[in-house]
Amino acid sequence: MQTAQLKAAAPACGVARPSMAARSSFKAAPAPSVARPSFARRVQKLQKAAGVQARNVVVVRAADDKVVVIGLAADSGCGKSTFMRRVTGIFGGEPKPPAGGNPDSNTLLSDMTTVICLDDYHSLDRNGRKEKAVTALDPRAQHFDLMYEQVKALKEGKPVQKPIYNHVTGLLDPPEEIQAPKILIIEGLHPFFDDRVNDLLDFKIYLDISDEIKFAWKIQRDMAERGHSLESIKASIEARKPDFDAFIDPQKKKADMIIQVLPTQLVPDEKEGKILRVRLIMKEGKKLFDPVYLFDQGSTVSWIPCGRKLTCTFPGIKMFYGPDTYYGEEVSVLEMDGQFDKLEELIYMESHLSNTSAKFYGEITQQMLKNSSFPGSNNGTGLFQTIVGLKVREVYERITEKEVVPV
Amino acid sequence: MQTAQLKAAAPACGVARPSMAARSSFKAAPAPSVARPSFARRVQKLQKAAGVQARNVVVVRAADDKVVVIGLAADSGCGKSTFMRRVTGIFGGEPKPPAGGNPDSNTLLSDMTTVICLDDYHSLDRNGRKEKAVTALDPRAQHFDLMYEQVKALKEGKPVQKPIYNHVTGLLDPPEEIQAPKILIIEGLHPFFDDRVNDLLDFKIYLDISDEIKFAWKIQRDMAERGHSLESIKASIEARKPDFDAFIDPQKKKADMIIQVLPTQLVPDEKEGKILRVRLIMKEGKKLFDPVYLFDQGSTVSWIPCGRKLTCTFPGIKMFYGPDTYYGEEVSVLEMDGQFDKLEELIYMESHLSNTSAKFYGEITQQMLKNSSFPGSNNGTGLFQTIVGLKVREVYERITEKEVVPV
Repeated sequence: MQTAQLKAAAPACGVARPSMAARSSFKAAPAPSVARPSFARRVQKLQKAAGVQARNVVVVRAADDKVVVIGLAADSGCGKSTFMRRVTGIFGGEPKPPAGGNPDSNTLLSDMTTVICLDDYHSLDRNGRKEKAVTALDPRAQHFDLMYEQVKALKEGKPVQKPIYNHVTGLLDPPEEIQAPKILIIEGLHPFFDDRVNDLLDFKIYLDISDEIKFAWKIQRDMAERGHSLESIKASIEARKPDFDAFIDPQKKKADMIIQVLPTQLVPDEKEGKILRVRLIMKEGKKLFDPVYLFDQGSTVSWIPCGRKLTCTFPGIKMFYGPDTYYGEEVSVLEMDGQFDKLEELIYMESHLSNTSAKFYGEITQQMLKNSSFPGSNNGTGLFQTIVGLKVREVYERITEKEVVPV
Repeated sequence: MQTAQLKAAAPACGVARPSMAARSSFKAAPAPSVARPSFARRVQKLQKAAGVQARNVVVVRAADDKVVVIGLAADSGCGKSTFMRRVTGIFGGEPKPPAGGNPDSNTLLSDMTTVICLDDYHSLDRNGRKEKAVTALDPRAQHFDLMYEQVKALKEGKPVQKPIYNHVTGLLDPPEEIQAPKILIIEGLHPFFDDRVNDLLDFKIYLDISDEIKFAWKIQRDMAERGHSLESIKASIEARKPDFDAFIDPQKKKADMIIQVLPTQLVPDEKEGKILRVRLIMKEGKKLFDPVYLFDQGSTVSWIPCGRKLTCTFPGIKMFYGPDTYYGEEVSVLEMDGQFDKLEELIYMESHLSNTSAKFYGEITQQMLKNSSFPGSNNGTGLFQTIVGLKVREVYERITEKEVVPV
């Protein structure tokens, strides 16, 4: 256990941590900053249901809490916001922009999490980029010094005045104040690009959408919904590709977990990007999380769950699990091709996965059901984003040595 | 439980079955035909180790015992005798020809099992077949009426005077007396051919060696060891093929379990038949045995156990499990391609199989080790023959409602 880290989080900012006496006697006379008994009982009940060893849980909101910093890298228009809603949903509360602030703020706050968008650290606004012929993907359009300073300050528990990049106007708006949350998530194009920022991250996620799927999705959105021509869509993809390949894509090597989204292999010539093959690539040997596995850890398994016990409609579901290397590093890969048609299929899948970090049987299914209106809820994107959310919770718990109550 | 069958086995031949009182009080005053307490304790201990619910076990050796009849069909030279040694080995004792009888007897006796070779029911001896231009595969060379009468008599507990086909001389020798055993195994070319004989069988096994493997094995034996020419081997295979396809092969549809032996798919162009892909095809929905499965019953799984936890040398092992149909009947297929190099690989495989009918963890491995000098001990033929042996025991126990003590 990380006793050193716990010690480092000793009183420092004038907010007393509850004494051991207060901790153990909170049923009789709860201290102000200590969880209410009813809440504690609920925790115990949930833990009991999840098979967690019963013990008193004290949820303390003190300034000496460690701030856990998570990075999510992905291209624009690849579903980062859905991903973030799945991850923050694990910690409860509806993420909202800062109350009374800039209505075009990109920040999302909930009880435990704050998600900031790295576009806010653009050093060049839309006009500036146009003048200098620099894309938003180019590091020259980002203010990495400021990004580093502010992520570092937040990690140290200090509030910052963060700029706002207005996606509507393309201008940089006056800054907003961001308080240090329990979990800070930075999402955007370059979370791992600058080594100083990268080193502040406790857990790194890369959302890797294959070119075929990006193209299919863009056609769906820009052609069907916005009336763009196929030619203009192709041209815009081609124009972004060199910078994407140069500055964004290479960051995936540094990620702890990568979600790869590929065309299905179950249906030949499926070009619409509706049925997906999704791979969760998980680095091995990390202290803060355990990779998920299917049936037999460290072996290679492919599994078609649909059969005698579980009937599925075409094209069904195919799972794969196995060891691999990813840019020279040892990883495990969990793959799902196809989609869920019925709730029981999802429960069936969940029941056969191990090391998911779920706190009770069915937690993944419960999360997926809660978010069933989100895109990807019937395929591997939703499943693996939910699992990554549980891993974020695992990382948080291992760093802070605090229990998060499942919601 | 098959109470009706138990009732049908009620006293009929003057040997009293122990009363319920004797059964429940055997610890105090064991009846003569009742197991000794030390034996019963050993059974209980073994059952406990195997997780079987503790209860008193009485092993009765009375003439009213049901005779369980097993059929094994296969071509000549396909390893039937090795198969039989693995199966009878599960019941203990070294199978031997009848003591003091014809030294060329084909019969093998052990404590619980008697294996008779159906060649003994040839109606034409070698000269007779030559004269009539009929192969040994042809039903016209078999005496099915006698086969039926004698298998029926043995099943009813009566001794028979069984002819002996002398494989050395090619002649029919004077008959030998065969007593009704607990388990009668008839092995040969036509165990399921005659409907009357087929109907007497409680469990049917077909050993199905693919043409490629038969050819490779025949070359190995007849060319390397006996100095035959490749041409003569090819000619002899071709000559047997029409009768084999007409009379032997179609019997496999009737089997409860089929062991298929095929060339490996792990090594391209492996023509020597040394690395094998072996499939155990198991009929579904049978009352007397449960099909084995891998990880998730009724689904489709492929599994390469060699990986992070288990290291193997080339070409390793690949397992497959899944539902299928076999001549219109529902089956499950368990497949093993490749071979074991180390004992731990075998234990690892065994630990991931379910419904094997092993009575304790490691029983398959123990059996394989005991018979490690037999051909096929490092691949799927040995593994699946051992599992089929355990299924024979399961069938015996379900029919007789008696426990067999693992040896």
